[in-house]
Amino acid sequence: MSVTIKDIARVLGISPSTVSRALKDHPDIAAETKRAVKELAEELNYQPDPIALSLKKRQSHIIGVLVPEIVHYFFSTVISGIEDLAYASGYRVMICQSNENFSHEVKNIDALLASRVDGILVSLSKETTSYRHLENIVEQRVPMVMFDRVAESLRVDKVVVDDLNGAYKAVSHLIEMGCRRIIHYGTAQYLAIGKNRREGYLRALADHNLPKRDEDIVRCDLYEDAVRITRGMMQRSPKPDAFFAVNDFTAIGTIKTLQELGYRVPEDVAVVGFTNGQIADVISPALTSVEQFGYNLGKTAVELLLERLNVPGKTIPARTRTIKTKLIIKASSLRKKIT
Amino acid sequence: MSVTIKDIARVLGISPSTVSRALKDHPDIAAETKRAVKELAEELNYQPDPIALSLKKRQSHIIGVLVPEIVHYFFSTVISGIEDLAYASGYRVMICQSNENFSHEVKNIDALLASRVDGILVSLSKETTSYRHLENIVEQRVPMVMFDRVAESLRVDKVVVDDLNGAYKAVSHLIEMGCRRIIHYGTAQYLAIGKNRREGYLRALADHNLPKRDEDIVRCDLYEDAVRITRGMMQRSPKPDAFFAVNDFTAIGTIKTLQELGYRVPEDVAVVGFTNGQIADVISPALTSVEQFGYNLGKTAVELLLERLNVPGKTIPARTRTIKTKLIIKASSLRKKIT
Repeated sequence: MSVTIKDIARVLGISPSTVSRALKDHPDIAAETKRAVKELAEELNYQPDPIALSLKKRQSHIIGVLVPEIVHYFFSTVISGIEDLAYASGYRVMICQSNENFSHEVKNIDALLASRVDGILVSLSKETTSYRHLENIVEQRVPMVMFDRVAESLRVDKVVVDDLNGAYKAVSHLIEMGCRRIIHYGTAQYLAIGKNRREGYLRALADHNLPKRDEDIVRCDLYEDAVRITRGMMQRSPKPDAFFAVNDFTAIGTIKTLQELGYRVPEDVAVVGFTNGQIADVISPALTSVEQFGYNLGKTAVELLLERLNVPGKTIPARTRTIKTKLIIKASSLRKKIT
Repeated sequence: MSVTIKDIARVLGISPSTVSRALKDHPDIAAETKRAVKELAEELNYQPDPIALSLKKRQSHIIGVLVPEIVHYFFSTVISGIEDLAYASGYRVMICQSNENFSHEVKNIDALLASRVDGILVSLSKETTSYRHLENIVEQRVPMVMFDRVAESLRVDKVVVDDLNGAYKAVSHLIEMGCRRIIHYGTAQYLAIGKNRREGYLRALADHNLPKRDEDIVRCDLYEDAVRITRGMMQRSPKPDAFFAVNDFTAIGTIKTLQELGYRVPEDVAVVGFTNGQIADVISPALTSVEQFGYNLGKTAVELLLERLNVPGKTIPARTRTIKTKLIIKASSLRKKIT
């Protein structure tokens, strides 16, 4: 995969030692040859071997960030945290978004590598199930930290949200408010966030001796999905008295639909979201939601990255940091005084 | 090892010269063919040969975008338009945000130039009043298109929103709804959008023979500003019966504050925003707002840029495109039937 001095030599029809000396600006090599070698090396994204690299590392002082969607409130707070610490440490930040599209994600990783960013922070698209493009980053020895939507199998630094506990607290709260049939609107199960929020939901039911119903767990992670699905949900028997949604927009689509159907929120049906974005305070009633502290997450990701950038030679084992969540209780779930 | 034009031609069953011209975006070649060639070239990691490369301009196929804030709904729709056309044309997109900070804007422009992007799309921060960093782009002959928040004095391609007419339509509508004292929450006057929206407001008052009051025009362009300022506004005499805000978040801060003070929206006070983001439909009552068609704006900016990228030698005079706006009337201003 990675380009060697031999590859460059073959393309240009010269010897590997000439290429090597050209790259080192050896006086014996003609200027013309040096230029051809350097241009090709750049074009093919040639990377010197790691020992040479640690001796003389070229730095762009740019950190590349790849997120699914920048408009998403959570990712925008993560980016704020990233930028604040990055700028304060003398780095600039370039952002790409995958738009939840795997092929865009791959192209963006290529573009970031081609731009010679010093390090990369990545959160996966919902479509991503293969990690070849990420392994490429590791092979090119570009430091990488994954955050929020991480690939569990890769041995790289990770910063994750404590999704399981966040979901557990949200669902336990609904049960304490008297809710007995709680629908979970979840996301893809191959994403850790999907799996962990579902697991938190299930554990809360189990710990409170409520039955687990498979049909109460539905893939529904967009505003439009919630608008489409919620009416049918309310025809079930026994009637659901709460919804726990994987994100705020889905929760808000649920509230709007329930209100249109004539249900009162939270008296008839309580709703809890996840993220606690700005929008959670705009909807009436205000949305109870799990605060993820995206700003801290972004800062933590940069901290891990800077430790690698500051000591390029040093071997640091892969680390995982977990950001605690907090349930912010508002009107959409407050059916009675908190005991 | 290295893939040639002949390899691509063989796979697609077309002639090498067609492949070559397709890669150069020659006008004689069908768009369908160009796409097939470019996709395969990318897939096979085709690299033009080094000699040809040094003669011709080196391309990164990356478009750099600098916006004030990616979380802002309007800019996120602009970015969607930019990305859709850019990806379809074989480009990747890298985004930097200034966070309304001049020094970040300058650093980001440097970073984009250092990354050798093929072209740059820029919207200015609220702080930007000097343009040296932009002149630097022009001097380096990197094609640039400014959008929305543009520097009027620079002779470069621009795509702007028809802010003046948008504001005119919004304020005329409020007057038709019976409002007689309309407060304008505006933004910095050295920004064209601030100046033009204010001008639209003033013309609508003049055309309907309403008095112009200097104290009714206030710099107030954040949710928090509106929460802080609106109470005092309502103590004026005669009492304001409408607010026209420069963006949706400011309008929503106004609605929330009015409701807390016991006023009914729109019966006592009507409110209109600008952008018509997702949030305009989450607030109750739904917010009347000026739709800016950010997606079209983004696409138009890329169109102008591609014309320059596709014919690097050609001299094209600086052009300005204006995107029409539309007033979307909802409950927050609907005090009576529209006549």
